[in-house]
Amino acid sequence: MNSWDETENHGSPDPVYADAGSGSPDVREPLFSEQEYAHRLHRVREKMAHQGLSALIVTDPANLFYLTGYDAWSFYVPQMLFVPAEGDILLFLREMDARGAFRTSWLPEHQIIGYPERYVQRPHLHPFDWVAFALRRRGQIAPSAHGCVGLEMDAHFFSPKGYRALVNAIPEWSLVDCFELVNWVRSVKSDAEIHYMHVASRVTTAAMTAAIDAIEPGVPQNRVAARIAAAQAEGDGEAWGDFPAIVPMLPTGASADTPHLTWSDRVLRSGDAVVVELSGVHRRYHVPLARTVTLGPPSDAMDRLEEAVADGLRAVLDATAAGVPIRELASAWNWKLASYGLEKPSRLGYSVGIGYPPDWGERTISIRSEDETVLEENMTFHLICGMWMTGYGYEVSETIRVTSTGVETFTSFPRQIIRK
Amino acid sequence: MNSWDETENHGSPDPVYADAGSGSPDVREPLFSEQEYAHRLHRVREKMAHQGLSALIVTDPANLFYLTGYDAWSFYVPQMLFVPAEGDILLFLREMDARGAFRTSWLPEHQIIGYPERYVQRPHLHPFDWVAFALRRRGQIAPSAHGCVGLEMDAHFFSPKGYRALVNAIPEWSLVDCFELVNWVRSVKSDAEIHYMHVASRVTTAAMTAAIDAIEPGVPQNRVAARIAAAQAEGDGEAWGDFPAIVPMLPTGASADTPHLTWSDRVLRSGDAVVVELSGVHRRYHVPLARTVTLGPPSDAMDRLEEAVADGLRAVLDATAAGVPIRELASAWNWKLASYGLEKPSRLGYSVGIGYPPDWGERTISIRSEDETVLEENMTFHLICGMWMTGYGYEVSETIRVTSTGVETFTSFPRQIIRK
Repeated sequence: MNSWDETENHGSPDPVYADAGSGSPDVREPLFSEQEYAHRLHRVREKMAHQGLSALIVTDPANLFYLTGYDAWSFYVPQMLFVPAEGDILLFLREMDARGAFRTSWLPEHQIIGYPERYVQRPHLHPFDWVAFALRRRGQIAPSAHGCVGLEMDAHFFSPKGYRALVNAIPEWSLVDCFELVNWVRSVKSDAEIHYMHVASRVTTAAMTAAIDAIEPGVPQNRVAARIAAAQAEGDGEAWGDFPAIVPMLPTGASADTPHLTWSDRVLRSGDAVVVELSGVHRRYHVPLARTVTLGPPSDAMDRLEEAVADGLRAVLDATAAGVPIRELASAWNWKLASYGLEKPSRLGYSVGIGYPPDWGERTISIRSEDETVLEENMTFHLICGMWMTGYGYEVSETIRVTSTGVETFTSFPRQIIRK
Repeated sequence: MNSWDETENHGSPDPVYADAGSGSPDVREPLFSEQEYAHRLHRVREKMAHQGLSALIVTDPANLFYLTGYDAWSFYVPQMLFVPAEGDILLFLREMDARGAFRTSWLPEHQIIGYPERYVQRPHLHPFDWVAFALRRRGQIAPSAHGCVGLEMDAHFFSPKGYRALVNAIPEWSLVDCFELVNWVRSVKSDAEIHYMHVASRVTTAAMTAAIDAIEPGVPQNRVAARIAAAQAEGDGEAWGDFPAIVPMLPTGASADTPHLTWSDRVLRSGDAVVVELSGVHRRYHVPLARTVTLGPPSDAMDRLEEAVADGLRAVLDATAAGVPIRELASAWNWKLASYGLEKPSRLGYSVGIGYPPDWGERTISIRSEDETVLEENMTFHLICGMWMTGYGYEVSETIRVTSTGVETFTSFPRQIIRK
């Protein structure tokens, strides 16, 4: 941690970490090569130039992780990565978090700066008041002669108060929305990222297997959740599990008509259909999967849904390959569903990869007719065929990778209704 | 769900829920009485009047839950509760979530409004564009002759883009920060809330017991996390567990000098000290707890910390009672620690209760010398005595309730270092 400004820093950071040198189990090897991190930053700066940005303010924890490797449950307080068009990028964290950031980030010490504890959760202060002044002291507030400064205007942990702090403290800057700039760079994965998703898929398979084993009449939902959560962390013995950005969802019975209710102690009974939506995670990379389990034979309506959705999903997978416009996937799905007299008003899927609560989606590409993206190799999506009908619901999903000639799925779980 | 505006609504909501009437296991009983919800709203409106607000925009999911009972993992898309000084409060959710909101919220159908799917995650649209227009159509945008409209300017899921949408669409409003208005109302718990925290404390005890059982040399951190996560959902057989707002933290060895690193497959070894910080949760109410486990005898430095912290914590508990200023607790702690030649630069604790990821703290009262709050009966705090030293760390915590004459702790776990 850098204590460049003694008058502003509170407490005296101690740079001596006795037992934490390289080779210590408490300092993690960077997940990706130096070249890969450099390439990511290069692609971000290319996009910045293209969007006329002289600097970028990054706050989304998934984007911080992507660019710096920094990984901790500290995003409930403000954090910021400052990315100038050239020169050092600077990571601003709460002081107690900045101390240990070197354990997960590749950034050298002088690029990690802790803001004082007294700015945390105070009514008329915001950490970005301090950060803005710190940037000014470092000569980073050149009037934006060469462009605007980009902000992640719709990131989950960038509040209006943090935004106003920057507006007030740095009147020289012309602030504009960067429109999920880093998220868009993330949409095409490197081979190393695909590797981590393959490891995650083994955790997914372990967790879905645990779910299906646990679902029985007489068992409360929270016990099923317990088995899933254990498998999500344990993994399959070799592939270990990281925490998921979304807890396991178990819409059951009539409440399966809405997708996002979390578990309770509601007891499963014969005749119930239980939707399971979960993700295996490895080093923040997610591979989500959904299946539907019925206790007893499925209703006729459910049987028809199964057939229609299987047909629709097959049509989408057949249509998928690099070079294909996203809207053609939406169209393949909608046509097939229409032939069964069905429609799905919500999107069919979204770009997926690194995730922190509350979402494993990347907030960029959605598979729907309004989306204008063209598929590229190594884009990854969660195709979620969720049909939330009146009084019941059915889901089946796949996480896919777009290849040059088609598509691969990360898991190979049977797609049928699981009849128990 | 209310489809008051046919021209704006997309899809045709079907109000018939065959198997979901009262008595169905898929509709939850309201957690609190009608009187209690009415009283909460009354206290919020009193505070609004006091702060000169003619309306309040609520976006924090914990505040939505507190006022409406609505509980689902849908806060990764924008949500809003509109609270006028008088008349119906209105809950705006994504259409697919609005459909099932009646399963957890006490609000009548006509006060729950779904915004169309096409506003979700689009570059030049925001759901609050639609919501602002919906408020206008309902005659809720009176020029603020009678006061300002309060916003939760520092809530986790209220983005600058959502803020700008309101600024642009409703120029008649004078928008001001409400300074965590609802969070402050939440700081004093009702007896019914204290009851749920007592249930949660049983889940906490089960989870901490599972953690201590699992911590052994040769075991990877993620396996310990698996055991904890299972116990957090399973509970103790009678008290069932809801999902925690923060995953279990297991700072180990040298990395215990920073509190917020999450688990990996790092294998525990003889000589390690492992800090365990976790929460049991019941129906969104949290009772966090931290303990430190050593594998083998603790170091001398750790022994000294244990004694100092135990003394400090006792001094704080002795000083706690309704009517005492918060700063006196901070002072009792700081004096005692100073007598051991120690200091803790971060806050000693914070108000706790309802939580959604990423935080179980209420973002109001912090136990530190700058805080000007005076303790009231049924305030609840997580007192977290975390000492993050260079190359090691020690934590012990209690969740407490302030009583008229003193304090009670929610759990009764021994406070010593757990030596294994």
